[in-house]
Amino acid sequence: MGSALLPDLGTEIFIPVCAVIGIAFALFQWVLVSQVKLSPVSPSSGSRDSPNKNGYNDYLIEEEEGLNDHNVVLKCAEIQNAISEGATSFLFTEYKYVGIFMVGFAALIFVFLGSVEGFSTKPQPCSYDSQRTCKPALATAAFSTISFLLGAVTSVVSGFLGMKIATYANARTTLEARKGVGKAFIVAFRSGAVMGFLLAANGLVVLFITINVFKIYYGEDWGGLFESITGYGLGGSSMALFGRVGGGIYTKAADVGADLVGKVERNIPEDDPRNPAVIADNVGDNVGDIAGMGSDLFGSYAEASCAALVVASISSFGIDHDFTGMLYPLLISSMGIVVCLITTLFATDFFEIKEVTEIEPALKKQLIISTVLMTVGIAIITFISVPATFTIFNFGTQKVVHNWQLFLCVSVGLWAGLIIGFVTEYYTSNAYSPVQDVADSCRTGAATNVIFGLALGYKSVIIPIFAIAVSIYVSFSFAAMYGVAVAALGMLSTIATGLAIDAYGPISDNAGGIAEMAGMSHRVRERTDALDAAGNTTAAIGKGFAIGSAALVSLALFGAFVSRASISKVDVLTPKVFIGLIVGAMLPYWFSAMTMKSVGSAALKMVEEVRRQFNTIPGLMEGTAKPD
Amino acid sequence: MGSALLPDLGTEIFIPVCAVIGIAFALFQWVLVSQVKLSPVSPSSGSRDSPNKNGYNDYLIEEEEGLNDHNVVLKCAEIQNAISEGATSFLFTEYKYVGIFMVGFAALIFVFLGSVEGFSTKPQPCSYDSQRTCKPALATAAFSTISFLLGAVTSVVSGFLGMKIATYANARTTLEARKGVGKAFIVAFRSGAVMGFLLAANGLVVLFITINVFKIYYGEDWGGLFESITGYGLGGSSMALFGRVGGGIYTKAADVGADLVGKVERNIPEDDPRNPAVIADNVGDNVGDIAGMGSDLFGSYAEASCAALVVASISSFGIDHDFTGMLYPLLISSMGIVVCLITTLFATDFFEIKEVTEIEPALKKQLIISTVLMTVGIAIITFISVPATFTIFNFGTQKVVHNWQLFLCVSVGLWAGLIIGFVTEYYTSNAYSPVQDVADSCRTGAATNVIFGLALGYKSVIIPIFAIAVSIYVSFSFAAMYGVAVAALGMLSTIATGLAIDAYGPISDNAGGIAEMAGMSHRVRERTDALDAAGNTTAAIGKGFAIGSAALVSLALFGAFVSRASISKVDVLTPKVFIGLIVGAMLPYWFSAMTMKSVGSAALKMVEEVRRQFNTIPGLMEGTAKPD
Repeated sequence: MGSALLPDLGTEIFIPVCAVIGIAFALFQWVLVSQVKLSPVSPSSGSRDSPNKNGYNDYLIEEEEGLNDHNVVLKCAEIQNAISEGATSFLFTEYKYVGIFMVGFAALIFVFLGSVEGFSTKPQPCSYDSQRTCKPALATAAFSTISFLLGAVTSVVSGFLGMKIATYANARTTLEARKGVGKAFIVAFRSGAVMGFLLAANGLVVLFITINVFKIYYGEDWGGLFESITGYGLGGSSMALFGRVGGGIYTKAADVGADLVGKVERNIPEDDPRNPAVIADNVGDNVGDIAGMGSDLFGSYAEASCAALVVASISSFGIDHDFTGMLYPLLISSMGIVVCLITTLFATDFFEIKEVTEIEPALKKQLIISTVLMTVGIAIITFISVPATFTIFNFGTQKVVHNWQLFLCVSVGLWAGLIIGFVTEYYTSNAYSPVQDVADSCRTGAATNVIFGLALGYKSVIIPIFAIAVSIYVSFSFAAMYGVAVAALGMLSTIATGLAIDAYGPISDNAGGIAEMAGMSHRVRERTDALDAAGNTTAAIGKGFAIGSAALVSLALFGAFVSRASISKVDVLTPKVFIGLIVGAMLPYWFSAMTMKSVGSAALKMVEEVRRQFNTIPGLMEGTAKPD
Repeated sequence: MGSALLPDLGTEIFIPVCAVIGIAFALFQWVLVSQVKLSPVSPSSGSRDSPNKNGYNDYLIEEEEGLNDHNVVLKCAEIQNAISEGATSFLFTEYKYVGIFMVGFAALIFVFLGSVEGFSTKPQPCSYDSQRTCKPALATAAFSTISFLLGAVTSVVSGFLGMKIATYANARTTLEARKGVGKAFIVAFRSGAVMGFLLAANGLVVLFITINVFKIYYGEDWGGLFESITGYGLGGSSMALFGRVGGGIYTKAADVGADLVGKVERNIPEDDPRNPAVIADNVGDNVGDIAGMGSDLFGSYAEASCAALVVASISSFGIDHDFTGMLYPLLISSMGIVVCLITTLFATDFFEIKEVTEIEPALKKQLIISTVLMTVGIAIITFISVPATFTIFNFGTQKVVHNWQLFLCVSVGLWAGLIIGFVTEYYTSNAYSPVQDVADSCRTGAATNVIFGLALGYKSVIIPIFAIAVSIYVSFSFAAMYGVAVAALGMLSTIATGLAIDAYGPISDNAGGIAEMAGMSHRVRERTDALDAAGNTTAAIGKGFAIGSAALVSLALFGAFVSRASISKVDVLTPKVFIGLIVGAMLPYWFSAMTMKSVGSAALKMVEEVRRQFNTIPGLMEGTAKPD
């Protein structure tokens, strides 16, 4: 325990309480979203009868009286159902394959880990201290398999719940857009928050319970305990791979396919109901950008926590059995939930969005507020839960670390995340010159447009890479691989807010699509378009966070492996390491080529199917027949 | 000397003799090309009067009798002059800036190297053996500066001569195309060979003379001697950077600009004389793909030689003063010239091209023949010039290497080059499915086309990376950094043939442009198009060689630096090295973004200028007025 202020009991209470608060807050937001009625029994005009409710009466004047509320609501509900059904059926199909993989991979883990000591059930000397006796390898294999499955299931559930709330909210956002941009924004943002908080709290609470349950068996063998916990991270990120790639290919193929035939060939507007690929496009947003991104960020979060825990278990925290110090990564995440909760209130309750131009600044403010508050939160957690000095395992030696250094490690990751968010916003928002330049280059045709766009994409990585490089340098120098892992956790500590503004994007995108398909007025469409434009930027910010944290996490994992495997150096001046570098640098291209080719082929099939429908269904182009 | 068969005197004779043979062969090819007359005094119909000359009488029948030879020849000469003038003026402008840089950089080298020992003119103890006395640091600074300037000038001259012969040959290729595809092919290929042999022989002879002259001063201090020689490689590659980037941006901007306005906006064919950007496009091919590529490959060649020499100078060759062993890299290059000479005869004299479809196989055969012959050549050189065992400096220790291992090092690089060539051909030739797939994807619009094309580009790197990885692994394991350097030299040993088939591309491209602009018949244009299609593939092969060898060379240079600086390991598990890796991986993107943006901006300006001309010059579109 050293001189840390927080007793173990406090840790045991603080973490689950924060998680429960997060879940409760998510459910509360869900209730608020569900108050927008979609059923014709209680038509949405109900809210018109109480014009003073929520203080939005000034917007109600904007509503167009000529609209037949009943029909539009019905139509929105119908489209929403179609999207929800499509997304659910896609995810179920995906999860069927994922499930098979999951079981197979779990069996592999068990067999490989178990066979290390010939499936021995006898206790063995500990790897870090041969004087002590640790649990048998077979137990670690079994527990690793269990935590792998837990991680995988949590990841899948996180993604699925996110998709559910997103498809629940999109039509509601559309309906609210009739009352004004502010109301629509709040519905979309609240729905994003539901997903963000559910994911952050679920991930935390499952990990916390797993650690406590495993501890009953492992007792004092913390090395074995946290080694088996790593399965949790692996489970989370392997599901993320499926969700992100499968969903990503689907969404992009549908998007490209829909746009190509619709905008380019048939010259009909985006999201036109006559285009059969539009529903597929909307489904894609939900399975790719919501469910996939949710699994992805959960994976990074779980990996970062596990990497930190493994390194900590062979450092002074683990050796001295300082439970509060050990669970420092989880404490940071718990504080993150509280901070994000306060931050969310700034967007939904403390301030009001009245103008279209206020949307992007409001989302940006979310990033800033959460980062500033979280810095304070990290300071509190660090100084009450960690002793003034402790040691961290550093490739064979124990490195002495001060608690203020640990605070800096986490903070540098957090602020690097903010910088990545800002740079992403600068490069993807239509308010700044990069996007305007690309738009401008379209005047001279597709070729200059592609060149400029690609150049812009390449350029946008420069500052984020420096931000990540600085965080690695600082955290690595202060606390070796543990520092890198907690820097990643710092970046991910505001995950609830990050996911909220990320999920907001596809929800608004869908809302716009529904407005168009339901044949709503130009003015409503304008508002959803404004939400959507901001949403594209925020979705990009979410991807920036995911990739930035993934870079840190992968280094942390590498560090955890190197630490446990007692490798003390990796020399570039050896042939194997060097060709590993070269081949490794090539792999992303290989992978990109495969996924791009899949997107291209899927889009091609989509285009052909849409063309077939346009050519074979009479009256489709004229709007008199329905697409298939 | 050990047990090597070749005496030092033999080496001193063999290298310059090979270089002189190379230069003589290049001049002979030039004379052959110049026999196609461009001046109206002796019209090209002259060759019609002697139908049995060269045995091509069967093609002469193909010639269209209706053509007014006189006028067409005049027009071709005029266009060629325009291209040549444009290219010359571009290169002179470029060289003006390059010259300033060169002088400034030379001064920097002198000041930095000289100041190491405070501009001391006193002899100092050698860095590799403090018992011996070496030349003062100031001398090394001065000689390094001289060799830097020599390398830079050789690079510039190589590029300039290549451009001159290319612009000399393009109209001649067009005129020969009237007589048949075989004749045109031979003219284009011979011109490429002029450039290839001039470059290889010049690079070799300048380096050889420099070493011998410097040796008069340095005497027994080979460490200092070859350290100052490294300036040669630096000079070559820094000029290559300018030539490649400056020329590359110019050529791509002109290409994109010409195509955009011409093909896309005005719907006129490629290379239409009404399009003012067409001459610029042709100029660009010469300054970018000929002069730039020449400087680039010369730079790689010079760097590889210098890297090998520096490592050798602190290995047994240098310590025991085995002159033949020391100059092994130059012996390999000398043998390369002889092998390429024989290979060229296969294309121009031993076989005849009669059909359009025979062009690509003929060029591919060049690659295979040169590689097979060179393998024999390497074996001969290795076993007569290198003792059975010798030692190579390997990060602090001397590693024992057998001569057969050295043979394998060079060969593995050579064959990796062949594999890269083949893979490049597969991915860029219209004879195989990748290019056909991309063409097919155009059916559904620009978006799928860009996705497929980019995916293909990414995919094309997979096998070359493995080829390079294997060569690094083999050569690194056998002979440390010296092995990597000679593997790079192996890949570059057939540089004369590589450059010949590379330069053939832009020459045919230009020939096609000239045919179109001179208003030659459809049949002639068809032949030049066939030459051009093969030429695009071969230009890509040239780029593949350049990049593949650059990868090996950069590792070899890194190794040479590490060896001389007595660094024994580079540990990835240190913060500085790790962030170096990350930032380093980002730099190509930064650089690409800058160059792509330059291309985009330049193309934009080009487009605007062309539009202005189309809009302001009356009669331009109708073909009655001339572009500016």
